[in-house]
Amino acid sequence: MRIALDAMGTDRHPGVEIRGAVRALRQGADFQVTLVGDGPRIQAELARCEGYPADRVEVVHASETIGPAEPAVTAVRRKPDSSIVVGLRLQRDGKADAFVSAGSTGAVMAASLFILRALPGVDRPTVATVLPTAAAPVLLVDAGANVDCKPSQLLQFAKLGAIYAEDVWRRSTPRVGLLNIGEEPEKGNELAVETHGLLRESGLNFVGNVEGRDIIRGVCDVLVADGFVGNVLLKFYESVTGFMHGMLRTRLEEAGTGPDLDDLFRPFDWTEYGGAPLLGVDGVSIVCHGGSPPHAIANAIGVARQAVATKMVGHIRREVAQDPNPRGTRDGWPREPARSEGG
Amino acid sequence: MRIALDAMGTDRHPGVEIRGAVRALRQGADFQVTLVGDGPRIQAELARCEGYPADRVEVVHASETIGPAEPAVTAVRRKPDSSIVVGLRLQRDGKADAFVSAGSTGAVMAASLFILRALPGVDRPTVATVLPTAAAPVLLVDAGANVDCKPSQLLQFAKLGAIYAEDVWRRSTPRVGLLNIGEEPEKGNELAVETHGLLRESGLNFVGNVEGRDIIRGVCDVLVADGFVGNVLLKFYESVTGFMHGMLRTRLEEAGTGPDLDDLFRPFDWTEYGGAPLLGVDGVSIVCHGGSPPHAIANAIGVARQAVATKMVGHIRREVAQDPNPRGTRDGWPREPARSEGG
Repeated sequence: MRIALDAMGTDRHPGVEIRGAVRALRQGADFQVTLVGDGPRIQAELARCEGYPADRVEVVHASETIGPAEPAVTAVRRKPDSSIVVGLRLQRDGKADAFVSAGSTGAVMAASLFILRALPGVDRPTVATVLPTAAAPVLLVDAGANVDCKPSQLLQFAKLGAIYAEDVWRRSTPRVGLLNIGEEPEKGNELAVETHGLLRESGLNFVGNVEGRDIIRGVCDVLVADGFVGNVLLKFYESVTGFMHGMLRTRLEEAGTGPDLDDLFRPFDWTEYGGAPLLGVDGVSIVCHGGSPPHAIANAIGVARQAVATKMVGHIRREVAQDPNPRGTRDGWPREPARSEGG
Repeated sequence: MRIALDAMGTDRHPGVEIRGAVRALRQGADFQVTLVGDGPRIQAELARCEGYPADRVEVVHASETIGPAEPAVTAVRRKPDSSIVVGLRLQRDGKADAFVSAGSTGAVMAASLFILRALPGVDRPTVATVLPTAAAPVLLVDAGANVDCKPSQLLQFAKLGAIYAEDVWRRSTPRVGLLNIGEEPEKGNELAVETHGLLRESGLNFVGNVEGRDIIRGVCDVLVADGFVGNVLLKFYESVTGFMHGMLRTRLEEAGTGPDLDDLFRPFDWTEYGGAPLLGVDGVSIVCHGGSPPHAIANAIGVARQAVATKMVGHIRREVAQDPNPRGTRDGWPREPARSEGG
């Protein structure tokens, strides 16, 4: 199998990406990596690396880069030779099996949809992400790609997330929870109440409503939410754990003693979890933080390998084709307001 | 001034309430407390207290109690002699200036609306609550009382919250932020985009969109959100800080050393913040956690005193009367599904 890696995505590209790729290549022998981006810079970085299987590394030149602040849809259209677009085309053309990027999330999503396309029957592809908990991590769908969702869309996010949890995380019959503000089925906003009904009838292993206070206990494997709530929650969580870690480090340094905080906070370290998959497109597309260190890139490559090895996309295709209400309209996704288009 | 205190609200009523009242009475001389609830039990608890100004304490008997799990609207209707209903009637009849309860949030909200009534021009009263941050605490409106909000309602929550922050927290021209998933005005769901426009034209000190990751930095005084998102965020926050505190305590005990965690986590301790005010009703009504210890009750009494002393309700009446779009429909609030009514 071959993983295409955008070498221009992180804040410290391409060095971080290349060290991440090298790290991943040392962890397994059943795959190759195609580094996509500024060819000469990539080659220069590779020349500094030692002791990696050079025969499993290929470089594909891409003359353009999409910056993190560029309007996503516009940038993807205007930069056909960007590392994101070139990398995804490799997968479309059968020259790669998966794509990993730490570039602009919006651009990776837009380009994935344009190039890989949504699977038949998928209304809106969703970005899933990991919420660490006191128990096992939880997969949050949607993490911010889709706002103003309909109940049928949340139901589909649940199905996509459950397949990912089953295939990539190896959790059988994953527990699906609905993020809500009360336990009872009739609690919540209109979206939550209607979605609760759909999930109950879905055949998924639906464990009911999950309140904000329940998340940390890891009471489900897949947590379903509108992308607005999901994104607020995700960003808030990362900032709170980061803040607490920093606050404690300062205090412990003052005291000159204490436990190993890095060890203590490792379960809350997003770099351990390997990126956010875009689910519902006809391919494997994984988005990483722009601030990813090499081991986060390596973990994302590991997730991509697992998705390819388990034939996750075929699994989604089969399950979604069984969907009694296929829509495939893709209306409004990806959305970018007119104001940004001109910017 | 006279504060009516529901003596039957906490998990350990009426002892906790009475110790909280005694604590508050020792902190200031300009007010009296009316304890509302089971008269004989209250008198028995009072008899155990020493060194408090007994001449500033009155007991009003209420023969009924509303439990935390009872359907709120139904319970308020069916229990006219409950401590919540009796306590709020004291305020309506001019025998008290404020009401504090650690009972069922839904029941206090419903009873406050039925008995105190919404102020003219207030569409939906809102429950505000405190989010601790690395800087000063932030007031979150709405904390869960109102879901499926309209932009005009979020605008009104912002106005109500700003008055509370100004009067009770003594913050002049409080900074109002809109919880959203991006910085730019066009980011977010439809509700957020439209509300952004209203807030910008509102005359409030609007500082723009606040992302999940910004909250912890304390970038605003008042954070506006639909009650669904607000409630998820609030409950999640409490659980995460509680979990971290517990996790660290365990590790530090193992290590037998480390900083004073209770001191370290004090900024994140909700018991320090004095309860959640219901804003937009014709009176002062403060809701506390059912698990409140005595000092949390005392803090809530302190908040109630401040609201009365600064004539916050009159301030809201003047500001809301200036509202160019008074609605006063109160449709859908308080809402309780038919299924619960029968339960």
